[in-house]
Amino acid sequence: MVAVPRRLAEELDATDPLAGFRDEFLITDPGLIYLDGNSLGRLPSATPAFLDTVVRDEWGTGLVRSWHTWIDWANRLGDRLAEHVLGAQPGEVVLSDSTTVNLYKLAAAALAAAPERRTVVVDAEDFPTDRYVLEGLAAERGLTVHALRSDLDTGLDLDQLRAALDEDVALVVLSHVSYRSGALLDMAAVNAAAHEVGALVLWDLCHSAGAVPVRLTDSAADLAVGCTYKYLNGGPGAPAFLYVRAELQPALRQPIWGWFGQRDQFEMGQHYDPVDQVDRFLVGTPPVLSLAAVDPALALVARAGLPLIREKSERLGQLVIDMVPDDMRLASPADVGRRGGHVSLEHPDAWRICRALADSGIICDYRVPDRLRIGPSPLYTRFVDVWDAMDRLRDLVATKEYTRLPSERPRVT
Amino acid sequence: MVAVPRRLAEELDATDPLAGFRDEFLITDPGLIYLDGNSLGRLPSATPAFLDTVVRDEWGTGLVRSWHTWIDWANRLGDRLAEHVLGAQPGEVVLSDSTTVNLYKLAAAALAAAPERRTVVVDAEDFPTDRYVLEGLAAERGLTVHALRSDLDTGLDLDQLRAALDEDVALVVLSHVSYRSGALLDMAAVNAAAHEVGALVLWDLCHSAGAVPVRLTDSAADLAVGCTYKYLNGGPGAPAFLYVRAELQPALRQPIWGWFGQRDQFEMGQHYDPVDQVDRFLVGTPPVLSLAAVDPALALVARAGLPLIREKSERLGQLVIDMVPDDMRLASPADVGRRGGHVSLEHPDAWRICRALADSGIICDYRVPDRLRIGPSPLYTRFVDVWDAMDRLRDLVATKEYTRLPSERPRVT
Repeated sequence: MVAVPRRLAEELDATDPLAGFRDEFLITDPGLIYLDGNSLGRLPSATPAFLDTVVRDEWGTGLVRSWHTWIDWANRLGDRLAEHVLGAQPGEVVLSDSTTVNLYKLAAAALAAAPERRTVVVDAEDFPTDRYVLEGLAAERGLTVHALRSDLDTGLDLDQLRAALDEDVALVVLSHVSYRSGALLDMAAVNAAAHEVGALVLWDLCHSAGAVPVRLTDSAADLAVGCTYKYLNGGPGAPAFLYVRAELQPALRQPIWGWFGQRDQFEMGQHYDPVDQVDRFLVGTPPVLSLAAVDPALALVARAGLPLIREKSERLGQLVIDMVPDDMRLASPADVGRRGGHVSLEHPDAWRICRALADSGIICDYRVPDRLRIGPSPLYTRFVDVWDAMDRLRDLVATKEYTRLPSERPRVT
Repeated sequence: MVAVPRRLAEELDATDPLAGFRDEFLITDPGLIYLDGNSLGRLPSATPAFLDTVVRDEWGTGLVRSWHTWIDWANRLGDRLAEHVLGAQPGEVVLSDSTTVNLYKLAAAALAAAPERRTVVVDAEDFPTDRYVLEGLAAERGLTVHALRSDLDTGLDLDQLRAALDEDVALVVLSHVSYRSGALLDMAAVNAAAHEVGALVLWDLCHSAGAVPVRLTDSAADLAVGCTYKYLNGGPGAPAFLYVRAELQPALRQPIWGWFGQRDQFEMGQHYDPVDQVDRFLVGTPPVLSLAAVDPALALVARAGLPLIREKSERLGQLVIDMVPDDMRLASPADVGRRGGHVSLEHPDAWRICRALADSGIICDYRVPDRLRIGPSPLYTRFVDVWDAMDRLRDLVATKEYTRLPSERPRVT
């Protein structure tokens, strides 16, 4: 570990063009260092009042009449996400359900569109729910899930993927940024490789949306899903998004035939006849209050802009890497171009170290089996926060203070 | 139409044991008569402050640590619903997703458990999304959907259902209370008839939960879904619930294999291995803010109790029926024992009458093709509200004032 003076962090803060955004968040405990924005983003200051208006005025006073407003939110927010975060076109993104349900809908639709192809390619090291969903779909249809084993630190190698691609592959499902290591895939290259054999690619953007500029159109992406509660700060369990490239929309049919996808929804027609547009991937009534909270959160990201967010994110990550304690090992790509918004460090006692940090007022998180995950979200994290956290981490690891803590883990980590 | 004096309604209000509950709702426009609580229930007074605490304290200050609290909400609220609203047992109900997604999960699970049976029985007059979901599942599996045509006013006849039941029927999907007519089915009798041929029954409780005492255990119900934003006042698009009878849980496997159903969820195991309990029907991260709003709402229903709610609901419905204008026709069962919480009236110009009522500050709703739906939710609707609304309706119909309005309908009704 090189010695990084705190003054360097202070200087980075002083010249940070996004520094003012910290004031746009409600930070009630200024002593807390929060490096887990990649699990749950902070609360934007504008959100409580906005929600209160939706609750009191729109629900309380407007009552059922407010559906005239609410009915388009999933699309309006989707279009804003497309423009400011995902590099997609109007009418290609909509908010709906959870990431897992969206993944199911889009994967099932893609598989149904290519019934002669019998293989799905996934990365065994991606977030488990993605594998589970594919495993379930494959079991039902007698398909094979080809689970690649990517490198735990550096992610999937493109050659490894290419070797798995042939004309039998219907769908490739990958995370743009790995939930564990933060490894960032080359989306355009993966899409091109899959398209060469006629397969579609479904991207999980949970850990990239709001941290890394995503260019769905420019990289010829087919399908994507992701959440809005990490770097987008939409609140706990905020509705997820789904993206379907415009020209694929009419041809893909998802398995959950619900009335929110129906043409002339309120005509209550006898048979399901989905609209041609992205709404055909909607199902039922969206959770309006949770949806509402995405609005002011997205406004902040749009105002800051992904280029500046990414630039700061890269520097925050570099500061983490520059201060990795001697007894920990970097478990993320060292190359900034191959890394998303978080950095993982390996240590056999990562769980207890994570707990000990929390006891010191520093929140990051732990991922099995031995990873400490540090996610400095650029809009509200200062360079001095990262410096102070890494300084404390170095002390903890050096003194082995954490060994006083119990080693068993509770259900929620 | 008999002449009902307003004094009668006033007397009913004066002796109404639930009269005080109106003060538990935030009613900002006391001149408005709201008879559409069966579409979206009113805002409980306690909800804004409760939500604000969840937003500011739990999200804003607690941040990701608050998942220790949130992780059990879907179950805790489910258990309270089971006890106070659904007549089910602890561990049989959980909040999750939308009604449509839940219907899909449970229907798919039931069909997968009886692959040798090739027929699904539905009521063609039930809410469309229910039919669409079954149509989709049947199309994928090559099953037959036997769509009964129930009476538009009085609902499904039990003999009609019995005639459709044989050993080829895997699943019967029915609404406990019809969304259009309010017709109430005999749940125990339907379950018994289906069980006689070895079929399961999946109930849609959207229009009964919180209005009619539901006795899932006592009527030997297998499966049920429903929403929490109508008579339960959980807010727009509040998460839906699902019920699976305890002994069926381990045997049923739903198609969306998500990490919220996984044993040792945070161990990130390679393969999907769902818990045996009701959580196996969960999928992804729940929308916490929308989930939160169900809490104070449910507290009100629990405190009032379904017996008193039902008693008042019956009387409110009777008052509507006693005041049906001469030129309208009752399109609901006249017998209170066969009717849920709302009453439908038929008129060729129902759409314009509904608009004209709204212009007079009376909100009820319209359903295709020619039904005016009046849903006086017992916790906040006074008998004089119903009297005033019906009095105004009689004038409107008699004078044909509504004919001044345009007849085309917008997208959202």
